[in-house]
This record gives sequence, C-alpha cells and structure tokens, in this order.
Amino acid sequence: MTKDVLVPRGYRFAGGRCGIRGADPRKDLALFVSDREAVAAGVFTQNRVCAAPVQVSRQRVPQERARAIVVCSGNANACTGEQGLRDAWRMTELTAHLLGCDARQVLVCSTGLIGKPLPMPCIETGIPTLAKQLSDAPTALLAAAEAILTTDTRIKMACRTQEVAGTEIRLVGLAKGAAMIAPQMATMLAFVLSDATLAPASLDQALRQAVDRSFHCISVDGHTSTNDTVLTLANGAAGIAPLQGEDLERFGRTLTEICEDLARAIVADAEGAAHEITLVVEGMRTASEAQQIARTVANSPLVKTAIFGGDPNWGRIVSAAGYAGVEFSESDLSLWIGDFLLYERGRPVNHDAAAVSRYLRDNREVVIRLRFELGAAGCRFWTSDLTYEYVRLNAEYTT
Amino acid sequence: MTKDVLVPRGYRFAGGRCGIRGADPRKDLALFVSDREAVAAGVFTQNRVCAAPVQVSRQRVPQERARAIVVCSGNANACTGEQGLRDAWRMTELTAHLLGCDARQVLVCSTGLIGKPLPMPCIETGIPTLAKQLSDAPTALLAAAEAILTTDTRIKMACRTQEVAGTEIRLVGLAKGAAMIAPQMATMLAFVLSDATLAPASLDQALRQAVDRSFHCISVDGHTSTNDTVLTLANGAAGIAPLQGEDLERFGRTLTEICEDLARAIVADAEGAAHEITLVVEGMRTASEAQQIARTVANSPLVKTAIFGGDPNWGRIVSAAGYAGVEFSESDLSLWIGDFLLYERGRPVNHDAAAVSRYLRDNREVVIRLRFELGAAGCRFWTSDLTYEYVRLNAEYTT
Repeated sequence: MTKDVLVPRGYRFAGGRCGIRGADPRKDLALFVSDREAVAAGVFTQNRVCAAPVQVSRQRVPQERARAIVVCSGNANACTGEQGLRDAWRMTELTAHLLGCDARQVLVCSTGLIGKPLPMPCIETGIPTLAKQLSDAPTALLAAAEAILTTDTRIKMACRTQEVAGTEIRLVGLAKGAAMIAPQMATMLAFVLSDATLAPASLDQALRQAVDRSFHCISVDGHTSTNDTVLTLANGAAGIAPLQGEDLERFGRTLTEICEDLARAIVADAEGAAHEITLVVEGMRTASEAQQIARTVANSPLVKTAIFGGDPNWGRIVSAAGYAGVEFSESDLSLWIGDFLLYERGRPVNHDAAAVSRYLRDNREVVIRLRFELGAAGCRFWTSDLTYEYVRLNAEYTT
Repeated sequence: MTKDVLVPRGYRFAGGRCGIRGADPRKDLALFVSDREAVAAGVFTQNRVCAAPVQVSRQRVPQERARAIVVCSGNANACTGEQGLRDAWRMTELTAHLLGCDARQVLVCSTGLIGKPLPMPCIETGIPTLAKQLSDAPTALLAAAEAILTTDTRIKMACRTQEVAGTEIRLVGLAKGAAMIAPQMATMLAFVLSDATLAPASLDQALRQAVDRSFHCISVDGHTSTNDTVLTLANGAAGIAPLQGEDLERFGRTLTEICEDLARAIVADAEGAAHEITLVVEGMRTASEAQQIARTVANSPLVKTAIFGGDPNWGRIVSAAGYAGVEFSESDLSLWIGDFLLYERGRPVNHDAAAVSRYLRDNREVVIRLRFELGAAGCRFWTSDLTYEYVRLNAEYTT
C-alpha cells in the first residue's frame, strides 16, 4: 500500500500503542503534525451529547496557526463530564509542549467506548514517546492511519494532486468508522491534509461543501455518533499563492472527491456488511429532499435485510420513500435495482425476479435508483445491508 | 381463550380462508358486521405511498351509518395503481350486497405483500362463503382475529367494559402487526368495536387521543407501513343515551387502555424479538419532545442489539437521545436500566455492570428510564430488540 501513498509537504506523522485498550495489541494513539502553521477548518457532530474532544476542537477552528492533531482510539472520552474536558485539553497541552507551540494550536479527537474516563497515565507517557517517532515517511502516515481505527477492518485513505500555476499541490485524506454512522452534520473521524495555501474562509467553505456531498450522504445504522469530526489542514508548504477563482473551485472539487472516497470506504467497511449499496435519487425538487428520501430508504431495516437476503423487495423501498416526509405521489416515482426497472410511475412492472435476485446475490456493490418527476435535483447516497454479523458484533460488543 | 372474550352486542363476525396465499392453509379473510348502523372513526397511515384500501376507507370516516369492515391478509393491495382501487372498492361492494346496504357503509383493509394485484377470483367467492358463517359467538370473533394476521405468531385482543347509568357497555379491540411498525399517525391494522352510543365527533376525538398514547408510542423497526389503519365502530346496541361529560371521558380512557394493550401486544410479538422494552421518558418540556426522544432511542439498531446481547451499554442510549433533535444538555439527563442508576445529570455512576447485565438477560420485559430536568411532560414508549431472528425473517421473506 505504501507505493500509493502521497505525502503532502511539510507534515510528519506517527502512530503507536500506549495501552488505552489494556492488553490489546492494537495501535491507539496518532499524531499529525504540520511543521509550519496551517489553516485549519472542521465540521463536527450535531449530537446534543458531544464528546469532550469535540467541545475542545470546535472552539479552535477555523484558525490560521494550527500545528497538530492528536487522536486516541479505544476510548471516545464522551459522557465523561468535566474530567473529560480536562483530559482532552491535557492531550493538546502535552502535544503542544513537545512541538513548542500553544495548546490552542493543537486539535484533538477520540473514538471508541463511550462513558469511561481516559486512562491518562498511558497518554501522559504515550504522547512524548510517539512524538519521537514523527516522520514524513509513507510508513509513518500509514501507522497514524492505523492508530485511529476501532472496529474498522482496514485503513481508509485517499490521495489527490492538483496543479496550480505549474506547482503540484498534494492532498491526503484519512478516516475511520464502521458503525454508529449516520452523520447529520459531519461524520466519524476524518482528516484531510494538504500543502496548499488558502484563506481560512475559503478552506472552511470548501470543507462544508465537500462534507455535504460525502459524509452527509452515508449511513450504516442511522445512529449519529457523539464524536463525529472532520478536520482539514492546509499548510502552504507547496509554496503557491493563496488559491482563488478557478483554482479554488478545483481544490473544492478535489476535496469533495477525497471526502467521497473516504465516506464510501467507511460504508465498504461497515460492520458485518455483505453489500455496499449506492442509492441514486433523481428528478427531485431539491437536493436536500433527495437526501431525505435516500437517508430514509438507507435506514430501513426492512430494506437492509431484503438486500442482505438477495430479495428484490421493491415494495419496501417504495414504502420507505413514502414515509421520508417528502411530498410526492406514487405516479411520480419509478424504481430500478441495477438495470432492472421494477416500478414505473406508480405501477409495478413485470420483470424477471430471479434475475434481479441473482444480481443482488452475485454483486457486493449494488445500485438502487429512484427517479421522480418533480425537478432536476438529486443525490447519491451510500449505505450497507443489515446482516447476522452486524447483530453479532453489536450484541457482543461490551462496554 | 374464548372464556376471556367479551362480545359487544349487535355485532357478528367471521374469519376464513379464500386462498389469497395460494396453498398456504392460513385464514386470510375476515368480516366484522354491525347489525345496526354504527358510528365509525378511523386513523390512517401518513405514508405518502398508501395502499388502495386506505384510500377507500379514509374517504368513508367519520360516518354514522357504517355496517361492516372487510379485511384480507396475505396481500396489502399497495402500490397496485388504479386496479388496486377498483379491487378495494369491489370488496366493499361484495360485502354491502350481502348485507343489503350501500358500499359506502363498508370499510376495507388489507395487509401483507406490497405490489401484487389482489387475486380477485378468490375474494369474489370468498366473501359470500364467509358471510354465511357470520355469528356473534366468541369463536367467530377469534376466527376473524386470526384471519387478519400475517407474520404475527398470536392473536392480539383486548376487552373492557364500562358502566353507564346502570348499563354495561362493552368494547373489544383486535390488532395485527409484527414488523414494518413505526406508526407516525396511525399503526398497523387495529379495530375497536363497542356497543356504546356516541356522536361521530366524540368518537373521532376519543380515537385520536387513544391512538396518540398507544400506537404512536411503539416502534419495531422504524419503517412506517403503507397500510396502517385503526378503525372503531360504536353501534349503540347497549341501548344507552349518547355518551357525554364524565361518561365520555371514561370511555376515552377505556379506549386508550384497549389501544395500549393492543399496541403492546404488537411489540410483544415483534418479529424475532427476545426483549420487550418499555422506555419511560420524564421531565421533558412537552410530551411530543419526550416521544421524539423515546422514538429515536427505540429505533437505534445499536441500542436494540445491545439489549439483545444483555449489554448495559448506556452510552448508546444517551447518544441516541442526543441526536433526537431535541434540545437538552448532558447535565439535564439521568438514566436507569431497571432499578439501576447508570448515569446521573451528565455523569457516569459507578454500578454493578454484571448485575445490570443479569437483569437484561433474565427478563424478557425490561424498562429503561430517561429522566430530564426540563419540565413535567413525559411518555411511555414500547419497542423490541434487534436479533438474528429479525434478520433471518426479513432476509428470507420473499416477494
């Protein structure tokens, strides 16, 4: 995998284990450091119950002097009261001390179990140890990408370049997440680092647009996490002038592509999933109505179990669209599974049910298309199916 | 069971099999007939995609001249276009012809698979055959109660009496439903028949209040059906004067009790359920905010799988409350599972996790209580857990 990794200039990384999960040998602590002050933007969970690191980081973006992101996995530091806030703040202070900067220049994230205090002795020794391993090598980036995972089975990373006035700028995105995924205003942890130069407002706006078309368009189980955070840094190390005009728009599209890759990687690794489902909604009045319909279909356990069972049960899909709270008539709606038209403007269409079932059974990636006759807006939305394995993983996961 | 059945005066019943499910031997056709004209009220699904019988019945209530309800199971007659409307209308016409009344005096319901046309030849011969078996015997009522079921494993019935000016009036309620249960404005099929005398507006209002505290307070899987219908008839056969004042209020409470019994019976028979969960929300500003929190917790697959696994994962419950869209602070919230206080005003409470886990494992009926500090409103809400069996039933259920 290292041959595909593109490291943006002026960053160093480290990922290691400090013992947050006790004897569990998995990595649990990551550092992303910019060697120069970077512009930073962030989008966070809208959950009323939000974790301590979200409360701390939210107050620190957007800013122009960010130096680092410190992340621990295995413990969410959520629902931990004032002690949680002190611990999140302390993580940034420890990191800042090692970098010779102010704590406010460090952003912090946590992910894992809710409701347990952080084991601070591990972290107090873990951060200084980890800082000694900071490196700009691709292997260091991969170690950091691994250290942010919880029930994920694989690293989620996306890289892009963009040419600006003869200079190549580089972006790399990292994410984690496999359940408790139903971002309302953000998603699980994701980080996009670039060596571009941007005004803070430009970066903030580009991130919001990218998140709206990516992390806002996925759901594994409809449960919005307490810790959802997307952070992006742009440190200007590529040596270009601040992006504007067409270059800035292209940067926004590139950022969206990276966020979409990461969002889809989360769905592809959804807990217990046997299918990756792309919902395409077309012909709606507004993109937000299209998203509302897609989200409602994506969150129906009856739709999810039907896809798991290879059952082309289009009635469950149509009826889920019907309770999305969006006004339409049955005669406005046509529905395809793969290339099979099953329902056309409010009427069932004769079809080869065995062939549709084969399509669902033989493909891990499947497409469901709902076409309305109400306008020109639409969306794509990604979700997973509901399987025995999802139930097993979440019935056996212990606090 | 017949010894517990209380038949209101002036009604006859029949339930039988006409072959809607092909060779399947289950009953699939039911008739509820009032021998005199009855006041009727109804509440129906708010799904934008609503079945043909819902469209037909909705136009016929409230009314003062209702004579019958005809119900078929095994086929929902939903998403069937104009043919579906003609078939639903024909079911009422066939019934009316046998009773010597107008088709508009007959209400109709269907439940089962979505998207297949009704097998009308079965129904054309089935209704006249069934009409010959109409009887006021408890066994006839039970046969009708059985004939409305689909994946239900048992009959759902509730009986009550009320004394009015020295006369006993009788109410009996019947329901079906085990999945696709997330009533937004109504629920699955439920019927409450009484021999009371009421003005149509009084019955309509009493029904809406009863439904709001019963069927609106359950969810199995968050998927609102296309066919949800609650109908109530009051035929005045007890020979009392029209209910008003205190008697009418008591009737409303009795109707609510019956609807609550039926709603809880649906959750108790939820597909694959291993637990019946009562959510108690207290101390909220309004009942609707309390319901919104309860519904969000009830629909979280992560909460449902935790209860299935006997895992007292209170963090999932608190975080689900957090994304319900209701404003509160963590310090407003305390949480109990059974008698165990796990979270108090925003802070985890030391507790015996093994004992809480034993409580969840040893009891099919469990109680989760969320207490806020924001007001005096609250609600009770009933739901089920998410099990391997739910996934199996719905992955293997074939269109």
